[in-house]
Amino acid sequence: MKILIINSGSSSIKYQLMVMPENEVICTGMIDRIGLETSNVTFKTSSNSLEESLPIPTHKIGLQKVANMLLDAQKGVIKSTAEIDAVGHRVVHGGSEFSDTVKINEKVKAKIKQLFELAPLHNPANLEGINVAEEIFNSAEQIAVFDTAFHQTMPEVAYKYAIPNKFLTENKVRVYGFHGTSHKYVSEQAIEFLENSSKIITIHLGNGCSMAAVKDGKCIDTTMGFSPSNGLIMGTRAGDIDQSVIFYMIKNLNYTPDEVNAVLLKQSGMLGLTGYSDLRDIEAEAEKGNKECQLALLMNAYRIKKTIGSYTAALNGLDAIIFTAGIGENSSYMRQLICTDMDYLGIELDKEKNQIRSKAVREINQVNSKAKILVVPTDEEFEIANQVYQLLQN
Amino acid sequence: MKILIINSGSSSIKYQLMVMPENEVICTGMIDRIGLETSNVTFKTSSNSLEESLPIPTHKIGLQKVANMLLDAQKGVIKSTAEIDAVGHRVVHGGSEFSDTVKINEKVKAKIKQLFELAPLHNPANLEGINVAEEIFNSAEQIAVFDTAFHQTMPEVAYKYAIPNKFLTENKVRVYGFHGTSHKYVSEQAIEFLENSSKIITIHLGNGCSMAAVKDGKCIDTTMGFSPSNGLIMGTRAGDIDQSVIFYMIKNLNYTPDEVNAVLLKQSGMLGLTGYSDLRDIEAEAEKGNKECQLALLMNAYRIKKTIGSYTAALNGLDAIIFTAGIGENSSYMRQLICTDMDYLGIELDKEKNQIRSKAVREINQVNSKAKILVVPTDEEFEIANQVYQLLQN
Repeated sequence: MKILIINSGSSSIKYQLMVMPENEVICTGMIDRIGLETSNVTFKTSSNSLEESLPIPTHKIGLQKVANMLLDAQKGVIKSTAEIDAVGHRVVHGGSEFSDTVKINEKVKAKIKQLFELAPLHNPANLEGINVAEEIFNSAEQIAVFDTAFHQTMPEVAYKYAIPNKFLTENKVRVYGFHGTSHKYVSEQAIEFLENSSKIITIHLGNGCSMAAVKDGKCIDTTMGFSPSNGLIMGTRAGDIDQSVIFYMIKNLNYTPDEVNAVLLKQSGMLGLTGYSDLRDIEAEAEKGNKECQLALLMNAYRIKKTIGSYTAALNGLDAIIFTAGIGENSSYMRQLICTDMDYLGIELDKEKNQIRSKAVREINQVNSKAKILVVPTDEEFEIANQVYQLLQN
Repeated sequence: MKILIINSGSSSIKYQLMVMPENEVICTGMIDRIGLETSNVTFKTSSNSLEESLPIPTHKIGLQKVANMLLDAQKGVIKSTAEIDAVGHRVVHGGSEFSDTVKINEKVKAKIKQLFELAPLHNPANLEGINVAEEIFNSAEQIAVFDTAFHQTMPEVAYKYAIPNKFLTENKVRVYGFHGTSHKYVSEQAIEFLENSSKIITIHLGNGCSMAAVKDGKCIDTTMGFSPSNGLIMGTRAGDIDQSVIFYMIKNLNYTPDEVNAVLLKQSGMLGLTGYSDLRDIEAEAEKGNKECQLALLMNAYRIKKTIGSYTAALNGLDAIIFTAGIGENSSYMRQLICTDMDYLGIELDKEKNQIRSKAVREINQVNSKAKILVVPTDEEFEIANQVYQLLQN
């Protein structure tokens, strides 16, 4: 079964064509800077690689371009759009409505639209991607996979805020959690790998960063809340901050609420602390002796350490912590900062195993460590394709 | 040495006259609703108790009233204001300037004033109390004891926010922490009581609620940050909340920033969740089967549990947790909710010892509990008097 996965962002489209259940990647690529002067368009198969710059004014033109590349007489991979059996759409916000992957119909689209105000940067682009894909790949099943779905098993104590109840009942203000596809995938991989896995913590460290406490395979808590802005320190996002800072900036520093929000989302996090947003640059600078970079890495690790402690309390135990995503999979330095002085919680890193680079699931704890430490490469595209495949089998 | 302790709030004055180092309380009392139609005035000695209602339009008139009661020919306790050797003022915000108790001079007053914008509800009232006390008790030393001082030992990783550095350097936006006098007092009491006390967590649960991680007697982290509004769930304060909720309320629900702030400070927390702000009412309701009250208590306890875990990670160990203040000292129910299923962190409550009511420092853990659980009644007035006394001895 050929499944096209589409991750449609506010100004980008990422796509991947897969054969399931073989888990074979036919091609992969992206279009960025949609709506700007020129976009970069990439298309990659096992034998070919294409890169070009051209203006892509809209998502519709972008997705048409993707279809054209797939269909291209020389370098293409399909002869007709009818070969695509299903299109799996990553949708960021599924609210409380969607706790699982669903076939898209008018009702589902209406609900995704209702959730615009909870995810104004993401859901409109996701819906646009769906609408355009329905036209272009009109014989394919359209399926939505929600970033929030995995977290829908959280109990009330974890998802409710201590604000007047009407904000939950009338306005649906609550913790939703994000990166659910990744947390689900890596927790399942870990559970398969581990002997004891009833109490695990998944740590997704990429551009965005979040953690989840997973009990018997189900999410019971996560760091991102109503939006993907809080919790851990991220590339440009502040993560958790005392709310009074916001009111102070508005009242005493004459910022508008929108300006404060922009500072917290786009100029904060590692960028605000160091001037760099890419962790590789920050690690290189820290190694050269840059004090701001050293401190920022410690702050970042400290918040993760504290969240590990917090979830260990929530789980009353700890079988394993799982590192994943760009930083989690590749930065041995961050993993070491996080796992240092954590033996009271049962976490003891093997520094040599921590240095091994690999694409495989691997254990990097000391032999006697009470809790395991795993690195599990995430694969959100596979997870989406697999969920689409499973749904269509039933 | 006779020391008058003054805790001057926005619309109230609490006072206590003590003899130090004997730790003898001569009298105690308060004036509330300053500036409103009528105030309640109380004055209490070991033999006398006075309560009256009259209008107290200003702090100056209030403090004059206190002086008059102290000096009263029949019920009074001093013959002249000159008998007062020192006045100890509780000052909420000492910023980064004050890490210890200081004698008040014009420079100190100027700094307290500079901190108005960081504590607009508290510091102006504190300074007003100082100014009036200087006039009335003009032969006494005036001493300031800061709520933030104990937390000034926090390392950068704990006090810095992940926002652009200029907000720290230019605007002093950082974690300060509050309830410092209480955390200091109970941690010192606990350290005296315990055999192992290098890693302890103090849990102050009163109208306001906060926790501190205390390593070798020094604070290394605390839940309240830039203001006393975040962290744990409180009577009417929301504590931690994803900042995006604020922007959502402003943008989508048409609240002004001031209105959002008021909701989070005055209509949230236990009140917002249950309609009650007094924990005793909420416990009674929960016992009767009120689901909202049951959930609110669980949410409150869950956040405290998670913070215990978080600080256990920060300390990489746990010798004891310390409960204090109104709820911490008196609610065996909350203590039990918090300590349930915490044995992985070494916390095992003795349910019978937990029921004992006493004014003494007491241990309520099981004999084999790796971490001790203490109840330590706080005494902020004594701590202020003691700090004033110690300062004047040097």
